[in-house]
Amino acid sequence: MTITLHVCITCRAGETVPEGQPTPGSLLHQAIVRIGTPPGVNVVAVECLSACNQGCSVALSAPGRWSYVYGRLSEENARDVVAGAAAYAAASDGIVPWRTRPEIFRKQSLARLPPISSLSEAAE
Amino acid sequence: MTITLHVCITCRAGETVPEGQPTPGSLLHQAIVRIGTPPGVNVVAVECLSACNQGCSVALSAPGRWSYVYGRLSEENARDVVAGAAAYAAASDGIVPWRTRPEIFRKQSLARLPPISSLSEAAE
Repeated sequence: MTITLHVCITCRAGETVPEGQPTPGSLLHQAIVRIGTPPGVNVVAVECLSACNQGCSVALSAPGRWSYVYGRLSEENARDVVAGAAAYAAASDGIVPWRTRPEIFRKQSLARLPPISSLSEAAE
Repeated sequence: MTITLHVCITCRAGETVPEGQPTPGSLLHQAIVRIGTPPGVNVVAVECLSACNQGCSVALSAPGRWSYVYGRLSEENARDVVAGAAAYAAASDGIVPWRTRPEIFRKQSLARLPPISSLSEAAE
């Protein structure tokens, strides 16, 4: 299954970013793109994940799976973010065993969301 | 459209909850159910939204829409949560104008997630 790794590129992570300088969020995004993403991972830049006071932040999601949001990240975490996204993509149900998650995913969860109900399920 | 309001019922919101006593999360859930949910809102209890240090928490989601997670809530916020969920359900695209969101939704966002890509979109 192809999963989506959303990376907030507008995040200032509480810093004052001078005009024309890249935001911490865009630096994290660039670092992820530089590393290259593994099969089944689609990296998508997004403007604001509304986790501004816990930034930088990323989110993992895919149809029919739990979604996860992680925060307090920086470009130094790019490799772990990519590894965690690869594990999420590779897990047949999207549930990565706790111990095999990168430490940043174990300790820096901002939220997880249940799979989104289809209209018919939600109407039941 | 029917949208889903997930309410974390296991949340202790940083409190020590004596054995047999209801958690703050379950009290929030009960308060929401007591108020009664408006048309188009499906309330679903969930065990842990992984926002434990920002609890209690709730999430709004629906197919094809942005999802939202809010935290630092208590049962006293039940009425505002229901009002906010109703506004989300009523907005044709799920985007509720900022000024018409309840204050708890403006100030206590934990995260928002873009609509989940379908497999075909994600593979592009």
